[in-house]
Amino acid sequence: MLYLEDLRVGQRYETAEYQMNEAEIKTFAAQYDPQSFHLDAEAAKGSFFGELVASGWHVAAVSMRLCVQSGPKFAAGIVGLGGELKWRKPTLPGDTLRVVCEIVEIQESRTNPARGTVTLLNETRNQRDDVVQTFRCALFVPKKDVNAS
Amino acid sequence: MLYLEDLRVGQRYETAEYQMNEAEIKTFAAQYDPQSFHLDAEAAKGSFFGELVASGWHVAAVSMRLCVQSGPKFAAGIVGLGGELKWRKPTLPGDTLRVVCEIVEIQESRTNPARGTVTLLNETRNQRDDVVQTFRCALFVPKKDVNAS
Repeated sequence: MLYLEDLRVGQRYETAEYQMNEAEIKTFAAQYDPQSFHLDAEAAKGSFFGELVASGWHVAAVSMRLCVQSGPKFAAGIVGLGGELKWRKPTLPGDTLRVVCEIVEIQESRTNPARGTVTLLNETRNQRDDVVQTFRCALFVPKKDVNAS
Repeated sequence: MLYLEDLRVGQRYETAEYQMNEAEIKTFAAQYDPQSFHLDAEAAKGSFFGELVASGWHVAAVSMRLCVQSGPKFAAGIVGLGGELKWRKPTLPGDTLRVVCEIVEIQESRTNPARGTVTLLNETRNQRDDVVQTFRCALFVPKKDVNAS
């Protein structure tokens, strides 16, 4: 379990990998992003992308799962406030994703002595090491000397 | 179908509503954000949130579906580049969400005469009109005079 005192700017973590498949891309899209270029390979040929691509929100959700399951284990879990999310390249069926997380900022809270805010730069990379998504996100992280007994 | 020429800064759109339920919150979390405060009401009592809350990524995904199904109908669909995503309040089982979209910036492309970039401020609001999520996002939108035949 990582508390605020355990963290340093520049620390890096890398998650396990996950391979995206066409069935899951379509299932996610049908439920949360029902646009033709996420649902139908034939229709996607005439779209901006020219081929079937995963919803950006699906890439974000898979990135979150990778971080929860094999990323840094923060005390209190991953409690995100949000941040700058960018989709840099499409994700295709068969692509294998992983997340590289780097701590870029650590701030003590001015109002709550029990916690601080940690900013991570999470890069979701594919099997060619292309960055397909970046998420610079702020998390609440508890302080050990206040919370641990 | 909305092309770049149809859009003006200040135009607002409002989507239909969608009620979140506990079963769907847990199903999404089990697949994409398996943390106890999204999965188990009892365990959530001891967490940062103090009760079961939806994953922020679930709120984002539901917001996207609302925009696709009942938001502004941009030609070429909703092709997002990303933007600033913030979770401002937790979303609980039973909350009813809708998205209020406002066009805040319109830019012609410097490199591609067939399209421009539109920035939307999407506020996801609950039944008390609390803003639970904001997403200031950039989209590609085609130009009519180049693309329409």
